[in-house]
Amino acid sequence: MLQTAPAAEVSAWLEGFADALASGDPDAVLGHFADECYWRDIVAFTWNVKTMEGKAEIRDFLAATFARTSPSAFALREASGQPGSVEGWFDFETATGRGTGIFRLQGSRCRTILTTQQELKGHEEPAGHTRRMGVRHGADRNRRTWTELRAQEDAELGTTTQPYVLIIGGGQGGIMLGARLKQLGVPFVIAEKNAKAGDSWRNRYRTLVLHDPVWYDHLPYIPFPANWPVFTPKDKMGDWLEMYVKVMELSYWASTEAVKASYDPAGKRWTVEMIRDGRPVTLKPAHLVFATGAYGPPRLIDFPGAGDFAGEILHSSHYAEGARYKGKRVAVIGAASSAHDVCVDLWEAGADVTMVQRSPTTVVRSETLMEFAFDIYSENAVADGIDVDRADLIAAATPFALQPEAQRRLYDRIRAHDAEFYKRLEASGFLLDFGDDETGLMMKAYRTGSGYYVDVGASELIIAGEIKVKAGAAIERLTPTGIRFADDTEIAADVIIQSTGFQSMHENVAKIVDRATADAVGPCWGLGSGMRNDPGPWQGELRNMYKPTAQEALWFHGGNLALSRFFSKFLALQLKARMEAIPTPVYRSPA
Amino acid sequence: MLQTAPAAEVSAWLEGFADALASGDPDAVLGHFADECYWRDIVAFTWNVKTMEGKAEIRDFLAATFARTSPSAFALREASGQPGSVEGWFDFETATGRGTGIFRLQGSRCRTILTTQQELKGHEEPAGHTRRMGVRHGADRNRRTWTELRAQEDAELGTTTQPYVLIIGGGQGGIMLGARLKQLGVPFVIAEKNAKAGDSWRNRYRTLVLHDPVWYDHLPYIPFPANWPVFTPKDKMGDWLEMYVKVMELSYWASTEAVKASYDPAGKRWTVEMIRDGRPVTLKPAHLVFATGAYGPPRLIDFPGAGDFAGEILHSSHYAEGARYKGKRVAVIGAASSAHDVCVDLWEAGADVTMVQRSPTTVVRSETLMEFAFDIYSENAVADGIDVDRADLIAAATPFALQPEAQRRLYDRIRAHDAEFYKRLEASGFLLDFGDDETGLMMKAYRTGSGYYVDVGASELIIAGEIKVKAGAAIERLTPTGIRFADDTEIAADVIIQSTGFQSMHENVAKIVDRATADAVGPCWGLGSGMRNDPGPWQGELRNMYKPTAQEALWFHGGNLALSRFFSKFLALQLKARMEAIPTPVYRSPA
Repeated sequence: MLQTAPAAEVSAWLEGFADALASGDPDAVLGHFADECYWRDIVAFTWNVKTMEGKAEIRDFLAATFARTSPSAFALREASGQPGSVEGWFDFETATGRGTGIFRLQGSRCRTILTTQQELKGHEEPAGHTRRMGVRHGADRNRRTWTELRAQEDAELGTTTQPYVLIIGGGQGGIMLGARLKQLGVPFVIAEKNAKAGDSWRNRYRTLVLHDPVWYDHLPYIPFPANWPVFTPKDKMGDWLEMYVKVMELSYWASTEAVKASYDPAGKRWTVEMIRDGRPVTLKPAHLVFATGAYGPPRLIDFPGAGDFAGEILHSSHYAEGARYKGKRVAVIGAASSAHDVCVDLWEAGADVTMVQRSPTTVVRSETLMEFAFDIYSENAVADGIDVDRADLIAAATPFALQPEAQRRLYDRIRAHDAEFYKRLEASGFLLDFGDDETGLMMKAYRTGSGYYVDVGASELIIAGEIKVKAGAAIERLTPTGIRFADDTEIAADVIIQSTGFQSMHENVAKIVDRATADAVGPCWGLGSGMRNDPGPWQGELRNMYKPTAQEALWFHGGNLALSRFFSKFLALQLKARMEAIPTPVYRSPA
Repeated sequence: MLQTAPAAEVSAWLEGFADALASGDPDAVLGHFADECYWRDIVAFTWNVKTMEGKAEIRDFLAATFARTSPSAFALREASGQPGSVEGWFDFETATGRGTGIFRLQGSRCRTILTTQQELKGHEEPAGHTRRMGVRHGADRNRRTWTELRAQEDAELGTTTQPYVLIIGGGQGGIMLGARLKQLGVPFVIAEKNAKAGDSWRNRYRTLVLHDPVWYDHLPYIPFPANWPVFTPKDKMGDWLEMYVKVMELSYWASTEAVKASYDPAGKRWTVEMIRDGRPVTLKPAHLVFATGAYGPPRLIDFPGAGDFAGEILHSSHYAEGARYKGKRVAVIGAASSAHDVCVDLWEAGADVTMVQRSPTTVVRSETLMEFAFDIYSENAVADGIDVDRADLIAAATPFALQPEAQRRLYDRIRAHDAEFYKRLEASGFLLDFGDDETGLMMKAYRTGSGYYVDVGASELIIAGEIKVKAGAAIERLTPTGIRFADDTEIAADVIIQSTGFQSMHENVAKIVDRATADAVGPCWGLGSGMRNDPGPWQGELRNMYKPTAQEALWFHGGNLALSRFFSKFLALQLKARMEAIPTPVYRSPA
């Protein structure tokens, strides 16, 4: 993948850039940037996740952050690309940490630069040469073995000692964040309402399989082995998470729910009332992280007439087993990923299924997505030396502002490639779209986290009429026997499954902290693109995710496996810095 | 570590060698070998683990094997070394498989060559590009999920289907062999008497920690992560094995013992009576593998007067917890690894400890061993691109016959480095040796599996007199109050712990199959060096390990983590070939 490197061009730019920074003259620095330019910083200079767009924003950012962060020791690690479009990977230091970045040149000037914090000086993760010994050789009558120390730590945590961080939610996001904190020596508790790590996957419907391929899904520290299947079945994923919690020695409280949390800004501690194994426990963490999934609570719509409906109504997140719906007429309201999966599962179980599509859906065939969109997360990439950490940095180096343009080109290719498939799908009555600006699945995922489906089989059933589609008419009300639409049609149903998505994660804050805090923090996720369900103003980054929020000591972590993996590192570094009382002045703090 | 490669010299040799092989003329082939020469073959040509020593043995080997294996496609992978002492890594094919080897030249001729089978054509392990999909996309009313298929397979195995291989013993050796078989699609059952995978480690004494460093201990497919401690505590090792069994999806029958096994040479099946969870089960595997540890049953010596002794007598393998011996006088009979560990554990618990040393022990300080002997299994090696698979091949490329010479040089350096330490240790009365031929720990390990200690703390306690040593006099008998020696001295003891090692693994065959089969197979382990406890004739390889034995369809697997890891691959390939009815004529079969 990497081309013969135009090292001279790239190292000349980096040298000039570093000299300009050292001079302290913002104009000198800006002279190294193209007119249209972007600087994405993840924690290194901003103690925030922030993209500065254009020279004016970069000038302001330089003025605010550079004196206090003292960047230095810029060193080119490698260069790649072709003349006119080259890329440099570099390392650098700040007063408190070490970082890695990527810049991309347009001619001889920088169009985009990414800077990321990789470690805190004096608080590096023990690994490789610095890994622990595991035993203190010699004789010691007061020796505590590894097992004894672990048991003692477990017994004390939450009673005589307090976690520095409480992570609410022990799915993949909470687990990965916990793993990072563990390495950094930050005491934490992960609170999970299910009985076992991995149950958040196990409890879903029987045919669930990850839609993203294995190369995109690795957890940090212990990658999936080379024999791992491309698409991980849900129970296998559950087992992997369970073993990961155990061998990474995470402080994981299963069967535990956070009930009520309040923050004391003077004492800088939360008070969190919890129920653990049926018994009340109060924790006093310095920081509270919501890692309750990419989304908040299920969104159950209270349709007019719902009380009249004689059958069962449930949300898709509570749908587990199709067998009991055999021979029944089931209406699935919704047309995104879960709706499609649930429809297939029902059809396979022998139900009579109708998908009620309320708005258009972006559909991409899995094989096509693998071929066109996962190029840096693939077996070929691995063979080319692009491991998952490298791929994550490559992906992060393109600012959100530039992604629609690239995604539009990608979807032009995808639509051309699968033109015949899309024609047949639309002929079935299914409402297809590629987003308001034709940018496809990934931008929908970032903007709203909904409205798309990676086709692993449902679309052909829709095309064949095996799964019926009712689209283009609003639901007027439920009747005793089904659903009545604004176009005066009605469908009969014994069961209605609402695959209507989830509320924003900040609704969990309203439940556990209070409404005022939730409102002050505002919604999570979304870029402020101004597209449907993603109101502006433009943010340039995901709202409230992985970075300081308007509520001191309150954080959000989540997203798919890839985002959780990548950002867990930076969120952990932000928490560690606070624990060590390293100054963390947040540039453009939301508070 | 690898030097600039003398590629021309090395590729010239390989070309000439390959041409000579192709010519079918043994003299032409032998012309490429030095007068003193060794060819170690692991499965590739011999379907055996065999070292041919000298030109006469190589000539015989060529005549017997080459026509039927049709070696071809020799290709140099890399070259290293300095002029006069160069090394080449190469790939090759046979009629049925693909292999990798290493040759080392003396001048322009070969002194040693290693050839190893790496895979069977048409039966490659699915991994990377060929990994399974994990799901069949599309809609299928008869869909069986991953979980359902696994459950069905588990339910059928041993009832409606039979394993091709039964592995007796579910410690590290059985588990690694199972993992290899799983990848090769060979149905197997691992039978383990403990309740959980990993218990073979958990059940040992509380302070047990691996004496080998992490770089030497990896399991295949899922290496320990970079944050894993250098020396793994026993319970942590237990947890890792337990998770490994689960995520590698091994057919692991815990709480299961093999009671009685007999072989039907006509039907080519074993009948094995087992007790699983208290209920009898009969399995009919085609092959039986004993993986019951590096050694056989504990060796309990019936000392004269044992019936008179008023206190407790136990074997060190049943010693778990020092606390109950606090304040007691404990005599530990034995002076190898377990004896030292048990003595320290007892001393730490506050017992009055005497080590009864019956023969001299090789002692090496752990730090020194790490620095001098584990150079290819170290963080530095990893940084130099020598991962564990590479290190294993490098280690395997030196035939056993040449190891004493290298080990003697190593121990000359170790003794010089730690001269002061050894002087103090001997001054305590402890009997120190470095083997009959001054070759140290590793050769003792291969020859007898006993008589050495990697010092992680006991030696300083011995030097300080905190652990007393009684050495140099035979035990005459036990008395009601202690042990009486041939030199007319006596020591008082409340408890006697026999750290007297283990019997050969073939004693387990006597127990489960019968004495005649055990005698026909003969002892396991040992090289036939003619040194103490390793009677000749010279074998050149470990007796009966990882290769066909005198009993058809009976195999032994075991050794430390490193040997189990390396040889599990080759044992699995031998079993897979038999399952696929690929001809496996064994060169110099023991039968």
